[in-house]
Amino acid sequence: MNQIVECVPNFSEGRRQEVIDRIVDTMCQVHGVRVLDVQSDVDHNRSVVTAVGAPLAVGEMAFQAISTAAELIDMNHHRGEHPRMGATDVVPFVPVRGVTMADCVALARQVGERVGNELRIPVYLYEEAATRPDRRELANVRRGEFEGLRSEIATLPNRLPDFGPAELGPAGATAIGARPPLIAFNVYLNTSDVSPARAIARAVRYSNGGFRFVKALGLLVEGQAQISMNLTDYRSTPIHRVMELIRAEVARRGLTVTRSEVVGLLPAQAAVDAAQFYLQLHGFSPDQILENRLTEES
Amino acid sequence: MNQIVECVPNFSEGRRQEVIDRIVDTMCQVHGVRVLDVQSDVDHNRSVVTAVGAPLAVGEMAFQAISTAAELIDMNHHRGEHPRMGATDVVPFVPVRGVTMADCVALARQVGERVGNELRIPVYLYEEAATRPDRRELANVRRGEFEGLRSEIATLPNRLPDFGPAELGPAGATAIGARPPLIAFNVYLNTSDVSPARAIARAVRYSNGGFRFVKALGLLVEGQAQISMNLTDYRSTPIHRVMELIRAEVARRGLTVTRSEVVGLLPAQAAVDAAQFYLQLHGFSPDQILENRLTEES
Repeated sequence: MNQIVECVPNFSEGRRQEVIDRIVDTMCQVHGVRVLDVQSDVDHNRSVVTAVGAPLAVGEMAFQAISTAAELIDMNHHRGEHPRMGATDVVPFVPVRGVTMADCVALARQVGERVGNELRIPVYLYEEAATRPDRRELANVRRGEFEGLRSEIATLPNRLPDFGPAELGPAGATAIGARPPLIAFNVYLNTSDVSPARAIARAVRYSNGGFRFVKALGLLVEGQAQISMNLTDYRSTPIHRVMELIRAEVARRGLTVTRSEVVGLLPAQAAVDAAQFYLQLHGFSPDQILENRLTEES
Repeated sequence: MNQIVECVPNFSEGRRQEVIDRIVDTMCQVHGVRVLDVQSDVDHNRSVVTAVGAPLAVGEMAFQAISTAAELIDMNHHRGEHPRMGATDVVPFVPVRGVTMADCVALARQVGERVGNELRIPVYLYEEAATRPDRRELANVRRGEFEGLRSEIATLPNRLPDFGPAELGPAGATAIGARPPLIAFNVYLNTSDVSPARAIARAVRYSNGGFRFVKALGLLVEGQAQISMNLTDYRSTPIHRVMELIRAEVARRGLTVTRSEVVGLLPAQAAVDAAQFYLQLHGFSPDQILENRLTEES
């Protein structure tokens, strides 16, 4: 099976289109990498790029993108609503096919070391690649943002980067890590009252005692109550288990689910896992998916 | 998106391994084709080969396989339990990705014409490629088998082949056609009594008034009642709709479904369709499956 890693770097530029284009061009020029999506937000002044390829190619792409962003973005002049600490703010590597999480952790560390040594940019390893428990959470790593980190990096021992110098240049610092694919999953209820959506969001999310890999909010979207979720590890907290809990919570309030939606991409395995659950499929192997056989090496 | 056609030729040889090997070798040697599976049955004296590739490559492969089988198999000496009329008995083309059923029908006709003209083997187009309604069903085309067809092909006008001569040589005749992917789906019940499985098989299958694209039997497998099914067009009669009808029929008899199984390959889209149904996903596009994006042409 050919190896595919997804990489979703976030850059601190969402306004100057020529800068965004030059960074994306750098990424596209790496052989064996495909850029699937670019989303820029003017208010956040930030761009999120989704790219895929074999591990080595994606690692090279990440390095080149960080290098180009460091040339073009000066964090001393960056303003935006989204928290940030570097020109390339965060670089997650995501295992997609034929690659383990350990492979992605190794890739994050290799790229991080090279960025620290060759570009002299401080690098913090986060999530699955973190070297310390308090650095698993990106919010901890980015605390104080560029301005706060600039004053603390040289003086506070716990802010020492994993790679690179203990001082911030105009490119700031970069968080590099590994994480499972994220699924953005929303469920709509047959009510215009937001309170049941909020209560059910609390029931399913980790922070209030729910599923370990669910973040959830109750919202009102075009007059309809919505439970808006991020599933951060669909193999450990599968989408169908979340859906069944929501159905139980919805039913006991005398309401129904009118529909659900996935925003952005869904790994095929997440659909297969749900089909297996609802069809009571036993002994089903990923090898039985016709398309998985097509992508094996000859 | 790259184009993939599946081809599942059936050969009238399931005993002489060297003959099977030479036919499969012929198929493997066509550039751009991958042989996924070979299943030989000694009692049937028949082998079924599953291969995939781009349409032109798969068409060439089918022609070469038919040519090799005609050299190595003499139908005058073939005996086996399975009905058959030719050395290469039946060749279905199946659209898998980036290919329509019409493309597969065109491919069946091109290969059929070439087999008739160059190899002088009578060819009958069947299923979606049929040129007459009575030839859609393979059983009609193969009526009388090799021996019966030999005496009728020159004398009965309705047995005139679509391509090739109106006489049978030692290679017999070949049915070439196009059909959707077939899913072999079995559901087990919590009983050792076969009669509910038989009754439910009758409820779901086309021949007794059930779903149009379901063939079903009630069986006893290792002491457990099983509904054994072929779903012959999963986009028109989806797996989840069959499962829900079975659950209703099982429940009203006071029984439960203990598990189900897919034998052989499942198209990823069938799993996605089931996930969409059970998760109430609306507005979901195949483009949202991450793996579908990976296989697009750059």
